[in-house]
Amino acid sequence: MPYSIAIHGGAGTIHKSQMSDEKEAAYKSALRNALIQGEEALKKGLSALDAVEIAVMALEDSHLFNAGKGAVFTHEGKHEMDASIMEGKSLMGGAVASVYGIKNPIHLSRKVMENSGHVFLAGNGAMEFAKEQGFKLEPDEYFYDELRYQQWQEALKEGVIQLDHSPLKENKFGTVGAVALDIHGNLAAATSTGGMTNKRFGRVGDSPMLGAGTYANNKTCAVSCTGSGEFFIRAVVAYDVSCLMEYKGYSLADASKEVVQNRLLKIGGDGGLIAVDFRGNICLEFNTDGMYRASINSDGNEQVLIYRD
Amino acid sequence: MPYSIAIHGGAGTIHKSQMSDEKEAAYKSALRNALIQGEEALKKGLSALDAVEIAVMALEDSHLFNAGKGAVFTHEGKHEMDASIMEGKSLMGGAVASVYGIKNPIHLSRKVMENSGHVFLAGNGAMEFAKEQGFKLEPDEYFYDELRYQQWQEALKEGVIQLDHSPLKENKFGTVGAVALDIHGNLAAATSTGGMTNKRFGRVGDSPMLGAGTYANNKTCAVSCTGSGEFFIRAVVAYDVSCLMEYKGYSLADASKEVVQNRLLKIGGDGGLIAVDFRGNICLEFNTDGMYRASINSDGNEQVLIYRD
Repeated sequence: MPYSIAIHGGAGTIHKSQMSDEKEAAYKSALRNALIQGEEALKKGLSALDAVEIAVMALEDSHLFNAGKGAVFTHEGKHEMDASIMEGKSLMGGAVASVYGIKNPIHLSRKVMENSGHVFLAGNGAMEFAKEQGFKLEPDEYFYDELRYQQWQEALKEGVIQLDHSPLKENKFGTVGAVALDIHGNLAAATSTGGMTNKRFGRVGDSPMLGAGTYANNKTCAVSCTGSGEFFIRAVVAYDVSCLMEYKGYSLADASKEVVQNRLLKIGGDGGLIAVDFRGNICLEFNTDGMYRASINSDGNEQVLIYRD
Repeated sequence: MPYSIAIHGGAGTIHKSQMSDEKEAAYKSALRNALIQGEEALKKGLSALDAVEIAVMALEDSHLFNAGKGAVFTHEGKHEMDASIMEGKSLMGGAVASVYGIKNPIHLSRKVMENSGHVFLAGNGAMEFAKEQGFKLEPDEYFYDELRYQQWQEALKEGVIQLDHSPLKENKFGTVGAVALDIHGNLAAATSTGGMTNKRFGRVGDSPMLGAGTYANNKTCAVSCTGSGEFFIRAVVAYDVSCLMEYKGYSLADASKEVVQNRLLKIGGDGGLIAVDFRGNICLEFNTDGMYRASINSDGNEQVLIYRD
């Protein structure tokens, strides 16, 4: 049986002119590391759910991406993270919003799915659940990053809420995600984010929302999104791809294109998504200049990409 | 131009044998009061968005329904409320989760939609936004209800999380909602809830999730759900009704029936939904014994119902 896995590390205005060779190599290396960890799991016969969790944890552990260790600063100088995971066979899922101090929010999402009796836990209540599940809290220093700090200071000065906006005018939607088909024919999707730099008011984006930022269904596909979250919520992006396949008979590629390049753009949303279908087809679709992305399948076809080529 | 409006006050095991004539009359009167307030707005030419907000506020102001004033007790003896609202013309929406002390969470959702630059705010951050918007907090006494208190004590004793479960073994999913088509041809939907009795861990259900508990799109329909929220999230219920209409050409009635009686039941979800389509057709579909519900349209067809008849 074939397997496939794809990952993303965010989409947005990512120009080669603003990227040093070293930085580009670091991003590609981090992407490839996460991809291969996920692939190894699939090769061993582990579930798609395991593979997407492992790949997203690797991305969360990198300071390069806005999730886990690399989470951006909120208005109050904290790191509030959202994540969700979903399994295509059972349609079970788990999600957390506004959690802090958690090294791997995607792992907490899985615990929500398996041990909480619920799907979606938020804020202090989610933290209480994390403690009951034995999660230890990382100190603030773990999440400290000089670049993120500068981005926050810049955003505070400008009085704006930013989507992982760097001093170099790189304008990127910081989210990580993974989708996979395992050798048992099961699909899974996972998404994790640190949200928006300087965010206030407990803003929740699409990342922890099943149907919007994350969706998996063995009948159709697994999807993980990254972009201007409010638009992804309003367009119910991840489930829309699945519906176009199930109800209109679209291919994964056509469904992803229709949602990202037409329906999402019509309401002003920018970003992208990664998806894999029940046959193992992979689609990496975005309407921005670039998207950190990588994929590999059991035929050995591997790609690690950043810009629109 | 025609108008239509429908409302619900929750679905579940609602048996005539457990309902006194007085209680039944009180429920019907409260439903009719909310319905007529919404209809008056539509008659005056106000928007569907105004009408569903007005109708849901009337339901939130009644102690009979699990939303606003009648919100159930959490594990900690508090009242945490979720709500969302969506407009079918612009596909704009607003939602709040885990807010407290707010008389009308649906009104706060609308402020999120109009004034926050975001779609979904949760917890303490949402409360901060409410204060900036001039919302005053009601004291705990405003939300106190002897029956709700007994339900909480019973749930604490049994150590279970309950969906608005009464000592009389009435097992009802407490949520309120409204959907409307206005004379300008625009649709809107709104949902509000106090969640589950004895709930912990900042559990978020489908009510504040656009796509799951609430959805509106002028091309198809407006939907508000009530039921076992976790299943409604996993089935992306509200948007699924819209997708079946848009992508498969189903009528509102067929789409609602397929989602509630087939797709939702298959994963074990119970509850119901109210929906109105762009032509003004109304559908009140549920797979439980009863659903507090009412509807009226510009032809004067009015119904106020509780049980499955």
